Order: sequence, then structure tokens, then C-alpha cells
Amino acid sequence: MLTKTESQQRVTRLQGMLQNKGVQAALLILPIDVYYFAGTRQNAVLWIPADGLPMLLVRKSLSRAKEESPIEDIRPFPSSKEFASVFNEDQIALGMTFDAVPVQQHSFYTRALPGRSFVDISMIVREVMSVKSPFELEQLRYSAGKLASVFAEVPQFLKAGMRELDVSAEMEYRLRKAGHEGYVRMRAFNQELFFGLAVSTGGANGGFFDGPVTGKGLSSASPHGASNDEIPVNKPILLDYAGVFNGYITDMTRMFVIGTLDPELQRAFDVAIDIQEMVRQAMKPDAICEELFLAAASMAEQAGLGSCFMGMPGEQAKFVGHGVGLELDQLPVLAKGFAVPLLANQVIAVEPKFVIPGKGVIGIENTFVVTDEGGVRLSDLPDGIVFLEA
Amino acid sequence: MLTKTESQQRVTRLQGMLQNKGVQAALLILPIDVYYFAGTRQNAVLWIPADGLPMLLVRKSLSRAKEESPIEDIRPFPSSKEFASVFNEDQIALGMTFDAVPVQQHSFYTRALPGRSFVDISMIVREVMSVKSPFELEQLRYSAGKLASVFAEVPQFLKAGMRELDVSAEMEYRLRKAGHEGYVRMRAFNQELFFGLAVSTGGANGGFFDGPVTGKGLSSASPHGASNDEIPVNKPILLDYAGVFNGYITDMTRMFVIGTLDPELQRAFDVAIDIQEMVRQAMKPDAICEELFLAAASMAEQAGLGSCFMGMPGEQAKFVGHGVGLELDQLPVLAKGFAVPLLANQVIAVEPKFVIPGKGVIGIENTFVVTDEGGVRLSDLPDGIVFLEA
Repeated sequence: MLTKTESQQRVTRLQGMLQNKGVQAALLILPIDVYYFAGTRQNAVLWIPADGLPMLLVRKSLSRAKEESPIEDIRPFPSSKEFASVFNEDQIALGMTFDAVPVQQHSFYTRALPGRSFVDISMIVREVMSVKSPFELEQLRYSAGKLASVFAEVPQFLKAGMRELDVSAEMEYRLRKAGHEGYVRMRAFNQELFFGLAVSTGGANGGFFDGPVTGKGLSSASPHGASNDEIPVNKPILLDYAGVFNGYITDMTRMFVIGTLDPELQRAFDVAIDIQEMVRQAMKPDAICEELFLAAASMAEQAGLGSCFMGMPGEQAKFVGHGVGLELDQLPVLAKGFAVPLLANQVIAVEPKFVIPGKGVIGIENTFVVTDEGGVRLSDLPDGIVFLEA
Repeated sequence: MLTKTESQQRVTRLQGMLQNKGVQAALLILPIDVYYFAGTRQNAVLWIPADGLPMLLVRKSLSRAKEESPIEDIRPFPSSKEFASVFNEDQIALGMTFDAVPVQQHSFYTRALPGRSFVDISMIVREVMSVKSPFELEQLRYSAGKLASVFAEVPQFLKAGMRELDVSAEMEYRLRKAGHEGYVRMRAFNQELFFGLAVSTGGANGGFFDGPVTGKGLSSASPHGASNDEIPVNKPILLDYAGVFNGYITDMTRMFVIGTLDPELQRAFDVAIDIQEMVRQAMKPDAICEELFLAAASMAEQAGLGSCFMGMPGEQAKFVGHGVGLELDQLPVLAKGFAVPLLANQVIAVEPKFVIPGKGVIGIENTFVVTDEGGVRLSDLPDGIVFLEA
């Protein structure tokens, strides 16, 4: 449950940024934006003036929103006729998160609030959400711990001849029993993710996913994640899963091999570990996101693995880490073109990986907090490849 | 895999509707819209002129899109400078699905295609998708059959004292092993669903979900689906799951009781069965969607159950059935205000349910095809409440 103090702190941070941008009020309608500030994910919209108290307008369920949210001013969603009258008429320069709000919704609120205009505040809202409070860090540590505990069980069930799908089903089952909430929220348009990936050679494909590995999936309708391919011996098996506990998402990848591993792949894995450690040490406030990516790409290049770093040759992702929190794809991104400084208490999944056609996918991923001493891991599961007997 | 013939038939149906509306071309960017017409869910946009051949522009993965799609003209996504030049300059009145396209995406394409303007073609695209081909009906029958086979296994694992979450995890595990693709696509803004629901008394709550039952869920961040509540004896246990196989979604609900059932709830269940049968018989081409809902609500009213039909008193959903296909919430909706005729080969999940505060949730759901003889069920699992020994 979101406390009143925490809600107020979040609202105050947003208000400062709204004032800087000359936006008089934010109308937040994306469920996760509402949840972050109001502590409820009911069907509701949240009005946050740049100066003053927020107001939550609830379509459904009003009773549940009242139980869950520390916002004081909670009302039923007004009728079309009354809608405009519930807002302060002096506030006409409004903000909305255009990255995720559909055109129809934007048109509805534009008509419902005549004489006002909306600007895009996606980056403001996402920046506020990227810096985690002590409460949120505790939630993320819990999420990472639960996720790691399920990863630790993999040797109990992973066997050659299982389908990738069977491995994924075992992971998903254990994660759910541990309290995983299932639905993995992503903000980016066109992205979808179900739990994560269990892939072997089926991971060395291209794909729509904005990450290094998409997986073959089960059909052209769901071309991501595990496939019906059998888990082979002597090949890398990559498990990449998101933990979702109390809404908070952490991200982790570990490698497994049944039998022995091609030395070229072992070397690529060692390079991934070195890159992770370089990035971890550099993850301090004021470090420039893009520079961390470029340094990582340069290490891959020097190791002769530049063409398969972060994706299939020709389809390489241009990042090495992504913010996580209430969404899998929060700010910041350790990416090309992202020339902004890190902030203390941002939380980032760092995932150096290589996709080597014909050989497989290999790499590592852990979630870290940005601190003055560099990245601090949220869980302590060992990184090494887990070798199982064939 | 989508055949070339089937893709052309779908495109031709859309083109007829675009011509009727004076729209010169559709620019489809929502993944499932692209998939429906082009057979691939890579990161791509699809241009369908009202007269002429479609063109698929692929961001990632181009090689996979070419393998999967029967569209002839497949190209890499053009650079910003070249973008406008790849389209026929005479086509300036364009359509986009404003129900799901974010404002930022709309702005991007508006800037990239100067001198053109977009109108909303959501309802056109959704109407085309609502009428299923013989190939799609086969896919839906397969989906319903797989889903029913997992429902048939419930008596093997359902026990008192399990958490709702444990029951859900068992369902999800079996569905995944059967080939369920996991991610359940919904089109409506603000809706999220993970697999389905396993709820007992925890289902008799309000919630954000646009359906009769939301479930308590695991936290205020994920307030839907199974909770940590224990499965009790002598109470109704409702399992409502979506099957997703080769992208095609069917929807099914069955009731389970460990021990005996309150006669009032048994009577409510019998009313739900009667409503389902009434709706089934009426599901013929040209029947008016709204009238089917009103007839269903009237039967509930006559049985003295009007105030808990399709939801908590005060939070009742105003529908009794929803289209399914590549999305869980397709057209048509058997709903108040939906005064349009049914079309042959639309596929609808009919789900009369009652939410009785303090007692629980109860009802039935099956997926039917609209035919001249009324609704034809997609699977033949018996409807009756399954009683297990306490």
C-alpha cells in the first residue's frame, strides 16, 4: 500500500517539473501513471495541478480506489456535462503522457475540457518514476530476491529433450507460486512480453522485441519467448525472466548448459561478465548513459564480438541496460543517443548479451541501483554458467 | 501461417469499407491489426490503399516478416527523409485506428506524411476482424478444444485449502504445456488481463476490469485474478480462462464446488444456463446485439437477480457477451447501446454471471459462432457445476 507521505513526495516532485515546464496541471490516465502517484490501479484518472492537491476521478471500482489510495479527494467519474466544472478553470495548459495515451482518449479529454490544450509530459512523468524511494528499493529488493530464488531451482527441472516451452512453463509455475503477479507491464508501443524467455538455439533469431533476444515463440502470432524446440546438450540455454511482485519488476538472466560448452561461447560469456562489471562500476550519479553503452560496445568490439553484441548481426539493439520499476522499460536507458546523466537511486537491469548465429545466445543480466559507489546488486545469485550433467 | 488468398480476402473486405468511407488508404501500426492482414507480428506498419496492393514496412525483424507474411511488397522501414516518398502522393485522406494508436505515434506519422490527414478507422478495422473465415473458425475450434481439455483436468488438482493463486498456477501450467501462447491481447484502453481468473469468495469484489468478475488479485498493483485467499468448502469456485493458440482466443468459465452449494446460488446458476440458452438460440444474423443483452437482463430481473447480474450491485457490466478472435475484446458486444445487427460467422463468448455479495460469484461462459441456426458452440465440455468431495 502506498502511504500518504510517499504519495505526496511523488506528487511534489512532479509538480516541481510541471512548474519548470509551464504546465499548469497533469491529467494522468494511463493505469500505471495513476498507480504510481495515487496507489490504485482501478479505472481512474488523476488530476495533479502544478500547485495544489490532486484529485482522483474513478470510473470503476470507486470503493476499491478509496480503500487503496491515500489521495484525499476521490470522486466518481463525472458525467460529460459536469466534467469540465470539476477542474479549476484557471488551469488551461495541461499535460498528458502522449507516449501511451491513445488518440481517442486524447480527443475525448480535449472535447471534455474546452478552452484548454494538452502538451506531452511523458518524459517528465517517466523521469520522476525512474528515481526510486527507499520504499521502492525495498520492493525491488524483494522482487529480485524472489526471482533469484526461482532461478536457483532451475537445476532441479532442466533436462535435455524438454521443449523450451516446458522449461518456461516450469519457471512460470514456480514464479506464480512465489507470488509473481503475472502481467509484465511495458510502456513502449508495439512491445509485448509474457514472463520472459527460455531459449536455446531458438534464441538465435531476429525478432520484433526491443532487446537482444526475442526467441522463436510458438507461432507467427506470438513470435517471442519459448518455442517447441527441444533443449539440446552441449549448447547454451538462456533463461531471462522478469519478476513482478507488488507491481515491482526486476529482470534477470542466467545461463545453463547440459554437458559442455563451445570455448568460443564461454569466452563470449566471460566478456559479458567483464562488461557487466565495467558498467556496474561506472553506474554512479552524473555518469552519462550513452557513454556506458559506448564503453560496453567498445569492449565487445575489442573482443572481436562487436557484430553480435546485443542482437543478431544486422538487428542489434543499441543499449546495454534499461530502467525497471513498475514497468519493464523505464528510464534511464544505457543507450546510444541517450546523452543524459544517471541519477542516484535509479534502478537498471544491465544485460550484456551476444547472439551468435548457428551457435546460440549467451550473456548475463542483473538489476542494480545507481549509487555513489557504483551499481549495487539487488540480489546475490552467482553469475556463473550452471553446468548440468548430460 | 496466413495464406496469400486469405490475406487478400481480408484486404479486399477492408478496401470496400475504406472506399465507402472516402478513405484513400489505411496506415495500420497496431501489431494485431498488422498481423490480421499481413500474417506477421514483427515490428512493422502496413499500408493498405483503398484500391491497389498493400505494402509492409518493417522495422524489425525484416527477415522474419518476409518468412511469415504473404504480402508481396515488403520493405525495410524507410528513413525519415525518404518516408513520404514511398507512398502514392495522390492518397491524402488516410485512416488509422485511433482507439489504440498513441498520440506520439499519430504525431510521428502526421509529420512524416505532410499534406495528408488521418481519420479514425477503428470501427471499420474491428468490424472486418469480427467476421471469421473458415480458416479462423478452425483455429478458434482448436483453441476452444485445447482450453476445454485443460478445464476437464481441474478435478485432478482442485482441493480445499489451496490458495486461489495455487489453483491459477495449476491452470496456467497446464495451459502452457498444451501450447497456450501466454499473452492475452486486449484492445481496450485501461484493460489488462493475465490468463484468467480462479476465484471463490475473493471474486465478489468490485474492480477495474470491464467484465462481471475482476477478482481480488495479489496487490493493489495487480488487483485482478487469483488472490492468496484459501479455497473454501461449500462455496462456488469460478474458473474463467482465455485460451490463446496460434493467436486465436476463446473464453470459457466453469463452476466447481467442494462439498455442497447454497440453493440460492444453485438457482442463480440455473438462471445463467437458461440465459445462455436463450442467447444461443437468438444468435442469428440480423439479431440486434443490444436486444440480446436486454432480453438477458430481463430474465435476470424476472428471477429476482437483476441487481447482481453481470457484476457487483452498483458496478454491473452492461453486456452479456463479447466478440473474441485475435483479441479478447473484439466486436460485436452484446451490450446496451450496441444497436447493430449480428453478422454470420462472428464469434462471441457468452458469459451470464451473477456476483452476490457475501455469497460469491457464479455463472457460465462458452464461445459460440453466429449462424442461421443460432449459436454453435466451439467446444462440448458439459456446462454443469462440478461437485467434488470435501
